[in-house]
Parts: sequence; structure tokens; C-alpha cells
Amino acid sequence: MKELVTSRRVMWGDLDSLGIVFYPRYYEWIDACGHLFFEYIGLRLNDLWDNRGILFGLVETSCKYVSPGRYHDDMEIVTAAYELKRKTIGLRHVIRRAQSGELMVEGNETRVCLDCRDPKKLHTVAIPQDIAEILEKVI
Amino acid sequence: MKELVTSRRVMWGDLDSLGIVFYPRYYEWIDACGHLFFEYIGLRLNDLWDNRGILFGLVETSCKYVSPGRYHDDMEIVTAAYELKRKTIGLRHVIRRAQSGELMVEGNETRVCLDCRDPKKLHTVAIPQDIAEILEKVI
Amino acid sequence: MKELVTSRRVMWGDLDSLGIVFYPRYYEWIDACGHLFFEYIGLRLNDLWDNRGILFGLVETSCKYVSPGRYHDDMEIVTAAYELKRKTIGLRHVIRRAQSGELMVEGNETRVCLDCRDPKKLHTVAIPQDIAEILEKVI
Amino acid sequence: MKELVTSRRVMWGDLDSLGIVFYPRYYEWIDACGHLFFEYIGLRLNDLWDNRGILFGLVETSCKYVSPGRYHDDMEIVTAAYELKRKTIGLRHVIRRAQSGELMVEGNETRVCLDCRDPKKLHTVAIPQDIAEILEKVI
Repeated sequence: MKELVTSRRVMWGDLDSLGIVFYPRYYEWIDACGHLFFEYIGLRLNDLWDNRGILFGLVETSCKYVSPGRYHDDMEIVTAAYELKRKTIGLRHVIRRAQSGELMVEGNETRVCLDCRDPKKLHTVAIPQDIAEILEKVI
Repeated sequence: MKELVTSRRVMWGDLDSLGIVFYPRYYEWIDACGHLFFEYIGLRLNDLWDNRGILFGLVETSCKYVSPGRYHDDMEIVTAAYELKRKTIGLRHVIRRAQSGELMVEGNETRVCLDCRDPKKLHTVAIPQDIAEILEKVI
Repeated sequence: MKELVTSRRVMWGDLDSLGIVFYPRYYEWIDACGHLFFEYIGLRLNDLWDNRGILFGLVETSCKYVSPGRYHDDMEIVTAAYELKRKTIGLRHVIRRAQSGELMVEGNETRVCLDCRDPKKLHTVAIPQDIAEILEKVI
Repeated sequence: MKELVTSRRVMWGDLDSLGIVFYPRYYEWIDACGHLFFEYIGLRLNDLWDNRGILFGLVETSCKYVSPGRYHDDMEIVTAAYELKRKTIGLRHVIRRAQSGELMVEGNETRVCLDCRDPKKLHTVAIPQDIAEILEKVI
């Protein structure tokens, strides 16, 4: 299983009135880490779009919030793929405090292969064979 | 069951490169609708914080994406409570296209009662009896 | 001079740790109001893009912050055009408290006409004559 | 003059329908870099708030957009202070492409010293002498 570890710091603008991270920010971060993960395994998503007219869009996401992020906390986000189906790939993101390793958030994204040659007529398609093989190897 | 219907329009800044809503925006909207729902049933969250030192924070959220939002789409977000436990309340948010009623997104938030008298030492508590009674009536 | 008045409520997720609006949110709102203003005067920006391959992008923005927005404050955003040049149009946005009319924020956007037929090779162009005439009438 | 250089990558969620950075994101980034700059010169803002009841809030911000950021562009944000007054400090942020050094955005923030012992009654105050001396040395 391949894992990508991304470092990130909680900034002032990520915080709510309680001084803890406003939860949609976690989704912004795991979305970004999803893209970085694809790039990490040799599948740069914007190139897939340009060269092959496909992208991996979202059909389902979820997060569990275990311990809140606070001002200038250093985090590590560990991203891995965990489930490959004909059209979808599941990504898991674990966000933990960088120094202590304490779990902060567990997130999941289910991404579906989209034909986006015409962005106004997006539709799901089977993951092409060569890409499925790359994904299979990293799970 | 009480339902709150909130209207909202997809704006340019909500869109990604594909011209569809970037999914963390849906979480920003359902979080906002959660607050509006509490206000709608007579529990203004900021007043709970000021007067009683409690808030309803998130322990878990999820969304399913059925049909993408696009530039200046008019949406309705229907918010209701569906499950009350000793410490938590579950909210369901259905986002649909205003004109056709077509389902766009289904979202869930599980909110836990937090003692936030000292925001640096947040901890979960049982929902106070009088508030639980209000929540029970709207489910 | 044509003015568009848009209503908006400050939500929990717009606030920072001090309990006041995190300032980039004001820019998100005035950007949205810029799009709504164009639509209001009969120039729907996404249609301009689809039908004529142009958009109005930003070359300069600024805001002055006079009085902070707080939880569930109701605001009015008053948008108007104030300066037309060969390639650019200046928009002014005044954000005020809905009930008292108290000034909260003054924002400016300078938008330039972009040839976006190929989004990878954006370049500025003169505002087409018919569009310049529409803009002239609303200043 | 002290300068802080912060690295950052444009992510999918920062982009608009044209595939270029949605401009309020630049303000989120320069705000974050403002906080990092204060920390860099020994003035951690959250500690100032905790220990002395002051913060540096915004009275004015502006940006010029020179060249658009695109998917996974690597950027450097160079932050420096440029003007100290009795109550305010001006910060300048230059965002440039990491590899070529090409200018992307120039941003300015004017931050005012706020008494925030009671966040509900924020008011401006003169910058305390010892902090003014630190700021003076880095300009």
C-alpha cells in the first residue's frame, strides 16, 4: 500500500469562533491531498483531463472529527487508496497532529471516473484498464 | 417533523475548473443551514453559547453527490433533525434544484453537545433536558 | 446610475476566532455580487463566455473594513459600476448593516475584459462596443 | 528589512471555472502569511491575544493580479512590513511563480492594533512601545 504524507499548518482563517478548525476546511485539505496522491502515483489529474478527457469526481465523502485543530497546529495528512471498483476508487485520509501523532480527523472520499470531454455533459465511465492497473498496485 | 427550507444560488466562486460546485462548499452551506435550523426551532446557537456555555459541534459529517450544481443554479436546502441521542443530534440536509426539485446532494451532520465555557477545554456533555425536549418535538 | 442591492446573512463559518467576519469572505461576497450585477443589467457573464468567448476578470481589488460583521448579522450589499475605460469596468460594493444602515465595508473591483476562447491563453481585449454601451448607461 | 518567504501550491479547489485561482484565495493566503510573518519576527499573534489582550486586525487590503495561478503551480509568497504608524502596520506580500520568479500578485494589508480583551467590544489602540520597537527593526 502506498501512502502519501502531506504536511500542513492550521492558519487563522481556518478557525471558527471557538478557535477550532471549521470543518469544511478539512474537506478542502483532503480534496487537495487526493489530487496530490494521484500525482504521487503518476496520475496527474489535470493531465488525465487534457490528454484523455477523464477526471475523478466525488460521489460520496465523509469525515469523523476526533480532536480539534487549533491555531498554528502542525498536521500530517496520510492519504491512501483502499478500494477499487469498476468505476470508483476509495481514498482514506488520516489527519494527525505532527508531533504527537494524535488522531484529529478520519476522512473518506469515493471518487468516480468521469468522462469530461464535454464538461456540460459529465457522465460516469469505467476506469480505463491501464489506470485501474496503476491503482490496483498502490492499494 | 419540522423542516427548514433555505434558498441559495450557486455563485462563480463556488465552482471548480469543471464548472461544477467544489464539494466543500456544500458542507459550508449545510453547516450554515444547521445553524439556521437551530434558530428556526428557537435555539439560537450563539445565545446558547453566551447564556449557557454550550454549543453543538460536529463529530461526523457525510454527503452523497447526485447531480452537480452549476453557475447561478437556484437551490433549496431542506434541513430536518432525524435522530436524538443523549449527547448528539443528527441533522439531514437535502439539496435540490429549486425549479425541478431534482436531487443534487444529501448531507448528514451529527452534532454533539459541547461544554464550551472554556473554549480551550472543550468537552462533550449530555444535552440539557429542556433543550432535548425541544429537539424531540421537532424530529 | 443603476444599483443592485443583495441581502446576505453572516454565518458561523464566515467568522474567525474573534467572532468577526474573516475578511476574504467579503471578497467572495462582492465577487458574487459583481456577477449578479452583470446579470441584473442584462449581461449574464456565463452567457458572454459561452456565446462570445469573453469574461470580465479581475486586475485589482480592495476593501476598507469599517465595522465588523458578527454572527447572523443581516447585511445589504449595494453594487454599482463607477468607471468605464476601454478595457476595464470599475465596480463599487458597499456593505452595510441591514437594519441600521451602518457602513461595514467598502469594496472595489476593477474588472478587465478577457478573451477566454482558449482559457489557457487568456488575454485582455477592448470591451466590445455593444457591451460598452450597456455599461455606459448604468454608470 | 526582514522578509519571510512561504511556499505554497495552487490546488484544484483554489481554481474557478476558467482554471485560474479564484481571487479571494490570494487574500486567504496573504492573511495566513501575515500571521506567519508576525511569528517569524517573534510576535506570535495568538500569544499576544492570550497574554496581552491585543491583536492586529485589518482596516484595509488590496491586491493587483498580474499573472494567473493555475493547477499545481508552485508559488512563493514574500512578506515584509513597510510602514509603521502609531496604530497600524502595513504588510506587503509579493506572490511569484517559484521556478521562473514571474510576478503573479501584489497584495497589501494594513493591520491595526486592537484591544480584544472583550471581543464584543473591539477597539483600536496605539501599538505598545515594545512591540513597535520590534516592528521598527524589521521594516
